[in-house]
Amino acid sequence: MGDAQRSARADEADGDERGVVETLERALPGRVLRRAADTSDYSHDRSHHPWAPAVAVVRATSTDDVATAVRVCRAAGVPVIARGTGTGLEGGANARPGEVDPITGTVPPRANVVIIDLQEMNRILRIDPDSADATVEAGVRRSGLNPVLAREGLQFVAGPGVDASLGGMAATRASGTNAVKYGTMAENVRGLTVVMADGTVVRTGGRARKSSAGYDLTHLFIGSEGTLGIITELTLKLTPIPEARSLTVLSFRSVEAAARVVQRSLQAGADLARAELLDTVQIAALNAYSHTDFRETSTLFIELSGETRSLVGQGERLDAIAESEGMLERRSIAPDDQERVWQVRHDALPAAQALRPDAYTWSTDVCVPIAHLAQCITETQADIEASGLVAPIAGHVGDGNFHLAFVLAKGDDAERHRAAALYRRMIRRALSVGGTCTGEHGIGEGKMSDLIDEHPSGVPVMRAIKRALDPEGMLNPGKMVDSRGE
Amino acid sequence: MGDAQRSARADEADGDERGVVETLERALPGRVLRRAADTSDYSHDRSHHPWAPAVAVVRATSTDDVATAVRVCRAAGVPVIARGTGTGLEGGANARPGEVDPITGTVPPRANVVIIDLQEMNRILRIDPDSADATVEAGVRRSGLNPVLAREGLQFVAGPGVDASLGGMAATRASGTNAVKYGTMAENVRGLTVVMADGTVVRTGGRARKSSAGYDLTHLFIGSEGTLGIITELTLKLTPIPEARSLTVLSFRSVEAAARVVQRSLQAGADLARAELLDTVQIAALNAYSHTDFRETSTLFIELSGETRSLVGQGERLDAIAESEGMLERRSIAPDDQERVWQVRHDALPAAQALRPDAYTWSTDVCVPIAHLAQCITETQADIEASGLVAPIAGHVGDGNFHLAFVLAKGDDAERHRAAALYRRMIRRALSVGGTCTGEHGIGEGKMSDLIDEHPSGVPVMRAIKRALDPEGMLNPGKMVDSRGE
Repeated sequence: MGDAQRSARADEADGDERGVVETLERALPGRVLRRAADTSDYSHDRSHHPWAPAVAVVRATSTDDVATAVRVCRAAGVPVIARGTGTGLEGGANARPGEVDPITGTVPPRANVVIIDLQEMNRILRIDPDSADATVEAGVRRSGLNPVLAREGLQFVAGPGVDASLGGMAATRASGTNAVKYGTMAENVRGLTVVMADGTVVRTGGRARKSSAGYDLTHLFIGSEGTLGIITELTLKLTPIPEARSLTVLSFRSVEAAARVVQRSLQAGADLARAELLDTVQIAALNAYSHTDFRETSTLFIELSGETRSLVGQGERLDAIAESEGMLERRSIAPDDQERVWQVRHDALPAAQALRPDAYTWSTDVCVPIAHLAQCITETQADIEASGLVAPIAGHVGDGNFHLAFVLAKGDDAERHRAAALYRRMIRRALSVGGTCTGEHGIGEGKMSDLIDEHPSGVPVMRAIKRALDPEGMLNPGKMVDSRGE
Repeated sequence: MGDAQRSARADEADGDERGVVETLERALPGRVLRRAADTSDYSHDRSHHPWAPAVAVVRATSTDDVATAVRVCRAAGVPVIARGTGTGLEGGANARPGEVDPITGTVPPRANVVIIDLQEMNRILRIDPDSADATVEAGVRRSGLNPVLAREGLQFVAGPGVDASLGGMAATRASGTNAVKYGTMAENVRGLTVVMADGTVVRTGGRARKSSAGYDLTHLFIGSEGTLGIITELTLKLTPIPEARSLTVLSFRSVEAAARVVQRSLQAGADLARAELLDTVQIAALNAYSHTDFRETSTLFIELSGETRSLVGQGERLDAIAESEGMLERRSIAPDDQERVWQVRHDALPAAQALRPDAYTWSTDVCVPIAHLAQCITETQADIEASGLVAPIAGHVGDGNFHLAFVLAKGDDAERHRAAALYRRMIRRALSVGGTCTGEHGIGEGKMSDLIDEHPSGVPVMRAIKRALDPEGMLNPGKMVDSRGE
């Protein structure tokens, strides 16, 4: 549906808004929130992008609930947005505010969309230790899943530091610190149950470890951010818990040296389980926030995992490479302290925020071919220096992925514009070396123009797929790709 | 385009057939074959599915050539089929014979399609050892690529035993013996150049190790068998050559015991590089064909790879599990003999064919959750026994994938029907435990009805995507999904 059509339908829906909500309440009694005070919490993610309270929230408990809600909303012409934990960083689950009415000059107080909240779909439906797979509802979180899997010696490895829902992680194609060894959500999901724009239920993939049967719908829905269908269940690939893990913290004079250690280790076939880079500003922020005493210079957190005996040999090789790159210091973290040190790393964003009083953070995300990583980071550091902004850097260096966290004063629009301009340059730098505008945070509404810059020939294909699967623009409108400009 | 429309257009094209070929010759001088004797070799794969000589073959040398050919053919309404080495097993690249004319009762002698042969697009465009990636044209074969990569200590790991082209492997979502450790083509391709049905050129993915930027077009084209676009270039993920490899051949009393060894090893976190199962009939065929003396019982070929020191520990664990499952014999293959023994394994299909004089083989392909593998194989063996057919079994047991090779007498239709019925039962068995009708051979024209059985809710979505990206049915018509029955 073109925007003109959508607007026309949205206008009808404004008049019929109460009608939709009442139909939803009849169809799903007790599952619908409608007061702005109640829907607000569900109407935005953790980004700085604008939002308004949705007209209603459906707290779904099953795939059938989701299908029912989609059908009711479609009949009324009111779009829907699927939502997990709301921990996204690009506005992917935001209810977008309506536009200024050209006659009255007012903005509608509510976003004319219905949020379908999936957090109560949190059942683990099946675990098969022999085939190392499980099927879960979309609202299950890793924190709920992994303790249950651990009883079988298994784990689910993909995902960010934040305790997101599996459905949201799949919809965003999330990854995190484990991706260097185990891959992203794309490599760890075998099949999906998806509610389509017309309310039909589609099952993709399956339980086999591989398949050549038909178009790869599983990967199409992974990363589609709820714009092609709503993921309600996932079949996950599980991984044995390794016998042992080692964690070392290595300090270097420069980002280049640290990045080169990881690059050379991977080239030598090292099986790095995690390889995290923190720049001087970020490590200082961690020290202040978590009361640690890491040397304040370019730092790697390296985890190895596997059979106990193999870790010794792997560690020796890593040390040899690190020494040849001028390692300043090496701390081996005792097994009992590893969890705590990883928590220090996962607190990078709040630690950054604590660098300035009354500040907020804006987390960025690019990913480049690993040989270009050091150069991209150091050029970005020089840009930060020149701009006078506060912006520590943390990176999943084994993937070539790094985040810069702008720490911005609330209400300072000029500073924010400086940050936005710097971010544009950082993205252009990433694209110029064959990288991507987002390694793991997604497009949402924040990076729609960057997506066009990155995939000028691909976006028309993406739009054709969007029109084919959601011709009326019912699913998460105004995100990812848009029919505007066609 | 519906079939009625396509037929109407095909009728026009029949009259205009010479016109298309002449336009192609003018646009791509010296690159067009037109005599049936010349086009026949390019008009079929290695399957038993029917074919007819295409009206022309374009031997493309660049993405531009492919785009030009597609545009000329589209203007004339003549569909195109992309072709690599023609080593497919499900008719994916076959030029389908025309249908019987209801008035004259004759079948057109030529298939009204143009084959675009990509084998001369065999340049390695770029290798970056530091980022461990490369970009190649679609006609490059692993046998051409890996010796060049080896100079940098790198390898490309995905792919079947046959020396197929990288483009064809991607289009079929191929895998092979390495998939248990390294994944399939889906996990080893980072980006593609694709010529679309209207002749536009699309670039998907990129060089970053991960990305959340937009719909995953790379995975959509991988496995689409040339029905959504023609892959002309690929950016590949490369893998360091391991320091050492070990190969052991383990003999067991039963398929169950052999399969359980692999399943338990994977559960224990073993990093198996290859895990191949051969049943008694297959190992006897290998012995006869390759003059080897393996014990004629259920057999595993297990490869471990990595650092020399780690192989010892891994091997000890594997042996302990194998002994607890009643291993009958264990042969450690000396490093210098490993290549030769793998060649024996890769010759499984000709070895099967040699079991009967003047026979042909029909290679099948299902994949199931690994816990169901032994049961699926033994039930299939019982079915073979009852049917009186000759059909050895070889399996990529670490993936739950196995092939049964029917060895059939030429011209014996009754035997072939018995084989087809047995294959249907084998597929139904796989689907009933959550498996797939094809682990790595693809759908082509041989498994279109099985695809519907496996993905009853997914096929309508696949058809919607096909219509969106190829509305006129220009690309590999009558394969994979079809608009018939809509």
